[in-house]
Amino acid sequence: MAVTEMPESKCDVLIIGAGPAGLMLAAWMARCGINARIVDKRSTKIFSGQADGLQMRSLEIFDSFGFADRAWKEANHMIEICMWNPGPDGVVRRSDRIPDVPVGLSRFTQIVLHQGRIERFFLDHIKKHSNPPISVERAVLPETLSIDKSLCDDHSSTSYPITVKLRHLTEEEATPAQSNGSEVRDGLFRSNLTDDDTDDLIRKSQGKEGTAEIVRAKYMVGCDGAHSWTRRQLGFQLEGEPTDFIWGVLDVIPITDFPDIRMRCAVHSAESGSLMVIPRENKLVRLYIQLTEIKPDASGRADRSQITPETIIKAAQKIITPYKLTYEYCDWWTAYQIGQRVGTNFDHSTRIFLAGDAVHTHSPKAGQGMNVSMQDAFNLGWKLGLVLKGICQPSILRTYQSERRRVAQDLIDFDHKFSRLFSGKPAKDVLDESGVSMAEFKDAFVKGNLFASGLSVDYGASMLIAKEGDAAEQGDGTDVSSSSKTRVVGKQELAKNIKMGMRFPSYKVLNQSDARPWHFQELLKSDGRFRLILFAGNILSPNQKSCIDAFCDSLSSSSILKPYLYSTIQILTCHSAKRTDVELLRDFPDILHPFDERSGWDYDSVYVDDKSYHEGYGDAYGNYGIDREKGCAVVTRPDQYVGFVGEVGGEGFKEVERYFGGVLVGSGN
Amino acid sequence: MAVTEMPESKCDVLIIGAGPAGLMLAAWMARCGINARIVDKRSTKIFSGQADGLQMRSLEIFDSFGFADRAWKEANHMIEICMWNPGPDGVVRRSDRIPDVPVGLSRFTQIVLHQGRIERFFLDHIKKHSNPPISVERAVLPETLSIDKSLCDDHSSTSYPITVKLRHLTEEEATPAQSNGSEVRDGLFRSNLTDDDTDDLIRKSQGKEGTAEIVRAKYMVGCDGAHSWTRRQLGFQLEGEPTDFIWGVLDVIPITDFPDIRMRCAVHSAESGSLMVIPRENKLVRLYIQLTEIKPDASGRADRSQITPETIIKAAQKIITPYKLTYEYCDWWTAYQIGQRVGTNFDHSTRIFLAGDAVHTHSPKAGQGMNVSMQDAFNLGWKLGLVLKGICQPSILRTYQSERRRVAQDLIDFDHKFSRLFSGKPAKDVLDESGVSMAEFKDAFVKGNLFASGLSVDYGASMLIAKEGDAAEQGDGTDVSSSSKTRVVGKQELAKNIKMGMRFPSYKVLNQSDARPWHFQELLKSDGRFRLILFAGNILSPNQKSCIDAFCDSLSSSSILKPYLYSTIQILTCHSAKRTDVELLRDFPDILHPFDERSGWDYDSVYVDDKSYHEGYGDAYGNYGIDREKGCAVVTRPDQYVGFVGEVGGEGFKEVERYFGGVLVGSGN
Repeated sequence: MAVTEMPESKCDVLIIGAGPAGLMLAAWMARCGINARIVDKRSTKIFSGQADGLQMRSLEIFDSFGFADRAWKEANHMIEICMWNPGPDGVVRRSDRIPDVPVGLSRFTQIVLHQGRIERFFLDHIKKHSNPPISVERAVLPETLSIDKSLCDDHSSTSYPITVKLRHLTEEEATPAQSNGSEVRDGLFRSNLTDDDTDDLIRKSQGKEGTAEIVRAKYMVGCDGAHSWTRRQLGFQLEGEPTDFIWGVLDVIPITDFPDIRMRCAVHSAESGSLMVIPRENKLVRLYIQLTEIKPDASGRADRSQITPETIIKAAQKIITPYKLTYEYCDWWTAYQIGQRVGTNFDHSTRIFLAGDAVHTHSPKAGQGMNVSMQDAFNLGWKLGLVLKGICQPSILRTYQSERRRVAQDLIDFDHKFSRLFSGKPAKDVLDESGVSMAEFKDAFVKGNLFASGLSVDYGASMLIAKEGDAAEQGDGTDVSSSSKTRVVGKQELAKNIKMGMRFPSYKVLNQSDARPWHFQELLKSDGRFRLILFAGNILSPNQKSCIDAFCDSLSSSSILKPYLYSTIQILTCHSAKRTDVELLRDFPDILHPFDERSGWDYDSVYVDDKSYHEGYGDAYGNYGIDREKGCAVVTRPDQYVGFVGEVGGEGFKEVERYFGGVLVGSGN
Repeated sequence: MAVTEMPESKCDVLIIGAGPAGLMLAAWMARCGINARIVDKRSTKIFSGQADGLQMRSLEIFDSFGFADRAWKEANHMIEICMWNPGPDGVVRRSDRIPDVPVGLSRFTQIVLHQGRIERFFLDHIKKHSNPPISVERAVLPETLSIDKSLCDDHSSTSYPITVKLRHLTEEEATPAQSNGSEVRDGLFRSNLTDDDTDDLIRKSQGKEGTAEIVRAKYMVGCDGAHSWTRRQLGFQLEGEPTDFIWGVLDVIPITDFPDIRMRCAVHSAESGSLMVIPRENKLVRLYIQLTEIKPDASGRADRSQITPETIIKAAQKIITPYKLTYEYCDWWTAYQIGQRVGTNFDHSTRIFLAGDAVHTHSPKAGQGMNVSMQDAFNLGWKLGLVLKGICQPSILRTYQSERRRVAQDLIDFDHKFSRLFSGKPAKDVLDESGVSMAEFKDAFVKGNLFASGLSVDYGASMLIAKEGDAAEQGDGTDVSSSSKTRVVGKQELAKNIKMGMRFPSYKVLNQSDARPWHFQELLKSDGRFRLILFAGNILSPNQKSCIDAFCDSLSSSSILKPYLYSTIQILTCHSAKRTDVELLRDFPDILHPFDERSGWDYDSVYVDDKSYHEGYGDAYGNYGIDREKGCAVVTRPDQYVGFVGEVGGEGFKEVERYFGGVLVGSGN
């Protein structure tokens, strides 16, 4: 069949892979109203196993889409980590307890929930919000990719630089064979101990007619996993090396007298390797078990035929002795060989992007994989959406690689260190230099917790982050600096704890009109809007009031900002006067709570830092490090990261204009 | 057509009416696995208007079924009440602010959400949990009812004392005509200003053939509203009188400069009547507006033709002047005449029961109607379920009238006082005896808030409530006392704030095995089980430990309790030692955390009163008023009401046995 006879269609964004990264991207496309398609080679979503730790930042992101509550309700909540190490007699005993996540960082804690449920939340969300409708097309495989380089810099609406041939598989072709006939599902087909089957699938399906189509796209995102087909077409590499450490994974309902089986545990045995306990929902426990008796062969890869649930549980029993550990029910199992790798490139001509496992692989034990993957897509999605809608300048797309490749590098460094400490043999005493010091391990664990929370991510200077310093140096080397015309450096000292480059932290504030307490971050929904947050200070002081009035007058007459108000830039106000001394209509300029003929005044944009009746006092100004009299102005990006902090008075407004001038179309360079 | 030709079937419980009371009852039937049917004469559920305040106790109940989170997320949260009264110049001004609900009583506050959504939550829950399946049969009308008195005391499984003829209506017949051709929905067809249409429906449909059926039932519950057909068949009366006060109701998106439009407000004007503001979800506000210019006619009933949205908003404008109040969008409107009435009987031979508006009517302004109605059914449902399953003695069904008729009487007394204060003209000064004192009004409002929360309900002594005093006197006069053989009086002083007769209050405790904080009440799910809550005290003290061991030994060998353990009586333990000093398997008898061959040890039954990492310290022992060394034993009913408080040692266990002996089948009198 000739190519010209194939059905042909166009879309703005083509997403390859419907795992957590692909679905996160599709969620943004839905929220931004983008014409997108998402395809996956598998015929069904997964039902067991796979990554399942949800870190705090991921929950904050889920909450910004409106479904954190579903995850929170169904998940197991991990509260405490117990460390078990050999005592002087060589027998393991509990040596430490620490909170699973640092206290006070977020309104969420770390939870554990099966990946299939998380995908369900995304699918429901995409169905509810997408217009045009987006639904995952399963059993669909990309077969060829070509890029018309001459069109890559053409951002007109008729420019489709990418052409992909998609092939629709039969159900049978798309269902992976599991490694044995057992009823217990295993995940070896996705493990890095198994070859990828994409090429097989392409070959097998090529004989069939009438099942291929041509898609022309403006942008494409490869969320197609560690063996990424997209990455291979682009010729990009993953850099890094595997280690000799091989781990088995069991999802079981354990029968044990080990006292901490419902805690997250790190167990280092004296001679038999290490084990990690991750308690899950529905009485399940995930066990990560080091398989010290299985070594890689000459090719550097372990022989997977030696690995069965029986060999894995036996290894676990040796580690955890003298406690007993068996199971009657196994839900899933797999094995993997630790390796840390980062992609050389995260994008091609800012037209084709890679996200998730396609550009970083590492051990699963820090509960990072799914989270960092989703956060890649969370970083990219709104940028694509706003560029496609003609709102943001295409240059912001360069920040994706700059921001996320740097995060991946940090992750791999962390994982490398963490895995070595975790897989190494414990030191017998302080003189045992070949062993791992348990004090060092604990220290790494505590530090790692902050990293693993996802809340330490700090994006470098760029047109989107108005902070001091060199953009290339703070990122991955990509040039993402503003032009000199729009370069602006915010005044971090005005809000010491609202760090430019980091996510907007959350404290409780009250709605001025109905006194309801909200976590400030709850107001920053993932709807594709930037926020101009006016910390109005003491609105009852005449000086400050005239400062606010002047700021609002400038806003009303700004040719740069006015056209974007509310639809692209939401204005939120938080003042510090006493709630009951202030009235919305009397004390605040209309632009901060606009009037609509049908729905009246807006009552959901002005907040106050005051005591609540039932939920204590957020002390937002105090916690954010903002002066209660003078306040400040903050800009957050659509992904809740802080772009700018400046004055309400003085040059503040001009700087806000300059910030947006470097970002929005038709308003700057 | 002869009766014998009609289809005939049997069910255990027939519920008439699928409003909130009927659905609550159906939810219990679903959770208890009862073969029940629920029919409603209307062809669709409601989409606008109707009662919508959800008080704290209702949310606690929703949480016990697992869907409070859905209501909490969608609803508007009411935080503050503002009182507006005439100043010395006769112009209304804000005179007071008070919290909408008393602080610290519950983990919930009062919220407002459209009744249609609440019905949706119930319908979803019933669908998920019912086996055999229960679904609302709409457009089905009861036509005749007969009771075979000779079978009423026969509790064998083949005894069906009730026969009802049901008629299936056409869609057209079952859809009520609204009062005008406007697109705005009105609720006059449900208002007490309109005649009931049940008889009309019966008459109109009788010509049709083949649409009737005979149902034989063991029990029947009439949740069929103020005009209850069921109540009329039984010949029971509503006692009480209407007042002259007529109120209009508007659900609008208001356009106004009134500063407190997003607060709950009580506005008393000097001469133009009163108005209540209830802010709702989706920018809607419900306005209750006194229509002082519309008077009842000679028959005592107002002429509804005078009442339109235009006349209602005009009345509101007069009250709220000098502020402006208009709207572009009206979602729903209605009008009603205040009247307080209570049913003479809540049951017939403990076989047919009445719940909700069928046995109490009152003004809607205290946000009580839907709540008290649902709570009637919440009280009745588990009793019916457990009697039908042969677990509880049928005599417990007598407590329904005893407990709920007393609540209805208290409600009516409250509403009578509250309505008079609310509809009366404000006193000009302290000498104005005919006017309502605004100080008295505020005082009633504050007291009323506690009543309205639903948390002050205190059921009297009975076989289900082991408290001191006379059962008839503490209820509505019905004899619900235990036999002398099983009569037991608990020791209230051992848990001063876990009051027998009241709902179990909630403080945070930690799961011993994973350190996760839970509100204690969250553990008391509506699954039809009683709970034996062992406040184990200081489990590390040898004396106390042997006390606990003895209690558990008695439990293991109790012929009364052993057969019911876990399936009918769940055991929960909460100790007061330091969490990290205690181990589940080492320190607690197996019976408190039983072993299962497939799922191992039970990790969800033992809790500790200790500090959490992220959610503070519940201080449950302190707040419950329990001695941290000695603890106590508490029994809660399946509806979270406290049945018994006693010692862990001494006569405690014997008393627990005696309590259950008076309740469970085959174990007592």
